[in-house]
Amino acid sequence: MTQKAFQDYYAEDFSHCYGCGKLNEHGHQIKSFWDGDESVAKFLPSDHHTAIPGFVYGGLIASLIDCHGTGTAAAATYRGQNREMDTEPILRFVTASLKIDFLAPTPIGVELEIRGKVLEITSRKVIVEALVIAGSKVCAKGNIVAVPMPATMMKS
Amino acid sequence: MTQKAFQDYYAEDFSHCYGCGKLNEHGHQIKSFWDGDESVAKFLPSDHHTAIPGFVYGGLIASLIDCHGTGTAAAATYRGQNREMDTEPILRFVTASLKIDFLAPTPIGVELEIRGKVLEITSRKVIVEALVIAGSKVCAKGNIVAVPMPATMMKS
Repeated sequence: MTQKAFQDYYAEDFSHCYGCGKLNEHGHQIKSFWDGDESVAKFLPSDHHTAIPGFVYGGLIASLIDCHGTGTAAAATYRGQNREMDTEPILRFVTASLKIDFLAPTPIGVELEIRGKVLEITSRKVIVEALVIAGSKVCAKGNIVAVPMPATMMKS
Repeated sequence: MTQKAFQDYYAEDFSHCYGCGKLNEHGHQIKSFWDGDESVAKFLPSDHHTAIPGFVYGGLIASLIDCHGTGTAAAATYRGQNREMDTEPILRFVTASLKIDFLAPTPIGVELEIRGKVLEITSRKVIVEALVIAGSKVCAKGNIVAVPMPATMMKS
């Protein structure tokens, strides 16, 4: 895959996120890509990311959905404006709300696929659905309402 | 406080959760207690739990709400049955769904309070509302639907 990940376009100031920042050495550093009209990220949880032995803990699943969702929101907005993600003005999104249905226990030791789909996109918000899939099984379904980052946060 | 934390009653097999397991040395090890009819946990995020510099990343907030919510669901069910949390039969809960509204950016470097309230309790599910508070500011509001852990997970 020669595509550059959404998160690798983020400016350095926005690359410290525990979930997806390429500069956060302690974090998950998830990478999201386009796959046609959908977005996809893959992640292999560590053994300590457990809920009870054998299964992934929900907080990690929430993190994956959250960061993949805001990344997808940004990428879709740039795409809608027919411009690359490293062009000005910079767009970054934060999560206004996050809803996750845990449909089945998520097995640990398996690479997870997080697959995003844009359900709605306006200048004020982007709604993304994200599935977390282990093998062929959908283990969790998320719905993220992402909004442009407030100016007060952009200035940090 | 001389109360024992909800999570410290969990049997060893259920004490490996990254969010709240006392045996997970990599995890958050959150501790939840009763405060009258509400439950409370406190947590100080690390510097690397950042979204963008200065603010806590959403996945951690989701984790805190999730583990505090399932812990509160278990504790409330034991309490409803007038028995201690270390008595048989063991009750453990998992999250069926989780909804979080991020109301304000959560500052990093501040001890967070997670405050839970049981909204509904039946034998099939417990609905818990959880607020994440920094200082006096409510930064996030969660709603967790917790259900008894499936027998297939209890056997692991």
